[in-house]
Amino acid sequence: MKQPVELSHACRLINHGPTVLVGSAHQGRRNVMAAAWSMPVEFVPPRVAVVIDKRTYTRELVRASGSFTISIPCRATLDATYTVGSVSGRDDAQDGGPDKFERYGIEHFDGPVLGLPLVAGCVAWLECRLIDEPHAEEAYDTCFGEVVSAQADTRVFAGGRWSFRDDNAELHTLHHLGGGNFAWPAKSVQGKVLPAR
Amino acid sequence: MKQPVELSHACRLINHGPTVLVGSAHQGRRNVMAAAWSMPVEFVPPRVAVVIDKRTYTRELVRASGSFTISIPCRATLDATYTVGSVSGRDDAQDGGPDKFERYGIEHFDGPVLGLPLVAGCVAWLECRLIDEPHAEEAYDTCFGEVVSAQADTRVFAGGRWSFRDDNAELHTLHHLGGGNFAWPAKSVQGKVLPAR
Repeated sequence: MKQPVELSHACRLINHGPTVLVGSAHQGRRNVMAAAWSMPVEFVPPRVAVVIDKRTYTRELVRASGSFTISIPCRATLDATYTVGSVSGRDDAQDGGPDKFERYGIEHFDGPVLGLPLVAGCVAWLECRLIDEPHAEEAYDTCFGEVVSAQADTRVFAGGRWSFRDDNAELHTLHHLGGGNFAWPAKSVQGKVLPAR
Repeated sequence: MKQPVELSHACRLINHGPTVLVGSAHQGRRNVMAAAWSMPVEFVPPRVAVVIDKRTYTRELVRASGSFTISIPCRATLDATYTVGSVSGRDDAQDGGPDKFERYGIEHFDGPVLGLPLVAGCVAWLECRLIDEPHAEEAYDTCFGEVVSAQADTRVFAGGRWSFRDDNAELHTLHHLGGGNFAWPAKSVQGKVLPAR
């Protein structure tokens, strides 16, 4: 069910504002965190912005490796999403103990281009090369990235478009309202252009 | 039903990734456009980023005035949202004709701090001062702003939190899937922290 997505459609995957999981790895260390704040900034080349707090372990690994991944979770992975957004991976690393993937049994696989960790059970996956923008990172914790691979679960994203239906409800994306409370999109509707007066 | 929102809660209004309407005005000219790409970047002080294409009339007015507004539309204002995202206000302005508000009968009111246009019938409203970041604007069309006023419709946002329920369905926010197709959030659910292994 996991299929490549054309890079020109990659930004559609986060166009509607879902919470995402940011994956990272560097020299044998790896981590995953939840991020409610991300957006596309360009369709072609596909570029995104994601806010990663400078105090996080993820930020350290992203800076060191110059890359990150985005996995888009769904209702079926709600608790894993909340969990990796609630605990720091740095504590695990300092203890020399298991990382978040191991500690919470979060299955993952390697991205096809960069080999970075993507989270299984999600509904879409991006690998990104960090664009070097030290000022935006420092002033706004905003990390810009260029998408180099994109994949999605064809049960809920096909033909370059999300399709949220009653029969795939467990695959609907999560949208963070605050405090661990998430909404998910229900049906969709087509807008119409109003007649000019 | 429109009430002020504490500035420390302002970023909650766009935390879940809704499509927004960007309002602008400068020296008697004004405009409004839809933007699917926005996100918070900081809770305190409340700061946001929104992608505004450099070819748009909105961008010209935002740059000239150093400010913009964000109105958060809902299902009841779906067609107005799609309309102001589909036509350019520059054509109207060059013709000396009515602007988008007049042409499409889009009611609006002045923001309490900056006096900029906010769109009536939406469910939340922010006024923002543009932060001077010419490089991010040029390279990524990303405009950073500091929120200076926030208001929301208490039927759907109260106590610093969105509440999407069956009985306020027309007030649910819009999330752009592409091509004028919008999803809206249905119910919400609380995430739980998984037990460590």
